[in-house]
Amino acid sequence: MTPFATLHHADEPLLLPNAWDHASAHALAAQGYAAIGTTSLGVAAAAGLPDGAAATRDETLRLALTLGSGPFLLSVDAEGGFSEDPEEVGEFARQLAVVGAAGINLEDGLGPTARHAAKIAAVKAAVPDLFVNARTDTYWLGDGEGTLERLDAYQEAGADGVFVPGLSDVEEIAGLVKRLDVPLNILYSPNGPTVPHLAALGVRRVSLGSLLYRRALGAAVQALTDVRAGHTPNGPTPTYAEVQAFSG
Amino acid sequence: MTPFATLHHADEPLLLPNAWDHASAHALAAQGYAAIGTTSLGVAAAAGLPDGAAATRDETLRLALTLGSGPFLLSVDAEGGFSEDPEEVGEFARQLAVVGAAGINLEDGLGPTARHAAKIAAVKAAVPDLFVNARTDTYWLGDGEGTLERLDAYQEAGADGVFVPGLSDVEEIAGLVKRLDVPLNILYSPNGPTVPHLAALGVRRVSLGSLLYRRALGAAVQALTDVRAGHTPNGPTPTYAEVQAFSG
Repeated sequence: MTPFATLHHADEPLLLPNAWDHASAHALAAQGYAAIGTTSLGVAAAAGLPDGAAATRDETLRLALTLGSGPFLLSVDAEGGFSEDPEEVGEFARQLAVVGAAGINLEDGLGPTARHAAKIAAVKAAVPDLFVNARTDTYWLGDGEGTLERLDAYQEAGADGVFVPGLSDVEEIAGLVKRLDVPLNILYSPNGPTVPHLAALGVRRVSLGSLLYRRALGAAVQALTDVRAGHTPNGPTPTYAEVQAFSG
Repeated sequence: MTPFATLHHADEPLLLPNAWDHASAHALAAQGYAAIGTTSLGVAAAAGLPDGAAATRDETLRLALTLGSGPFLLSVDAEGGFSEDPEEVGEFARQLAVVGAAGINLEDGLGPTARHAAKIAAVKAAVPDLFVNARTDTYWLGDGEGTLERLDAYQEAGADGVFVPGLSDVEEIAGLVKRLDVPLNILYSPNGPTVPHLAALGVRRVSLGSLLYRRALGAAVQALTDVRAGHTPNGPTPTYAEVQAFSG
């Protein structure tokens, strides 16, 4: 088992903070995290590209290149692999592994189950050691119908873990954990179960998706509003030197 | 007078929020700001480059390219122009103007006064309409000695405004305002005078430097710590759809 896969079988679930740039990845890792994920929304928004666009492929690889040599294991949010051709997705995954990624996140976007399974299989064939987290969008984009069928197909195709963003019902989560052979990843939501609660349900990985990037933007806007009004901005703020240390 | 220059002669001083990427620029501008600056620390840290490095030149131009067509006037923090050759600095400024910048910030880093003056003159010769904000680092890197001599030389070279980061003493600020022919820019500091106070002293432009980027990183780290502890993160957080709107 690779070091990154091992983190999915520890006492505590893997809490995976999602970074959007170099300094955010290093600042989050410095809190004592062995693994850092990326957020495709953050990467796309930072570059001014629509989330899900093929143009985001280059930005994703570029960020992986700067983060791949960091003092943490890197899992890359690769949307749907930026192609509908499984071979091309396998090749992209190979490039991510070359620059240092330990894991990849691949979402089905509710396209055909067989096509997503083929992408997963292509990635595992191209880079067997890359941890493939297979995401289904049955809850993110729908009402949950077809979740089990899809996850079964993705497990059979070789997925090392599965990810069901949008699922927050505790009984459904517990039921899914029992049915799966691989670790279940849940997207943390401020309106859903807490991390300790998700851990108790048997969830093995909790990601934060775009939450930290969105909170960062919200805090910047709030600080500006405070300054304009003559107030001192509130909340923890690293010094210039601390940020420089995250950037080298 | 260009639209950007005009903002330095309005009833209120120009409060210039400094963005570090595409979405932050659009999120800040959406608060009702006609002009947005960039922060060289944020740009360098986001890319994993040391602040001040020549490699940051390409990232700076890249960000200007994505922001230059935004619904705001853009002022680019160009450090020392990324060269000690005035002609090269003029050429870089021309490229920034081509992609849509309305202003440039050039810092002396306490190099020779004459060399910085030559850079300013070269930029004004290459792109007369680009607002040149000439920064001296007499307070940022020193004790303030030589400020007036430097600012006089930069004004003579054609600077449209001058910037003295690190200066926060109200009497010194008021004295400098009286001595200058061009607008004075002060860096806001949580420990210094408020924006209304700076306005009353005659300051014509207040920048936020790296403050918003640093606060964004601090808020992301804090949110992660809260989630890990089982708490709900606090503070304004744009939705997924709102961030997507800032990113297109």
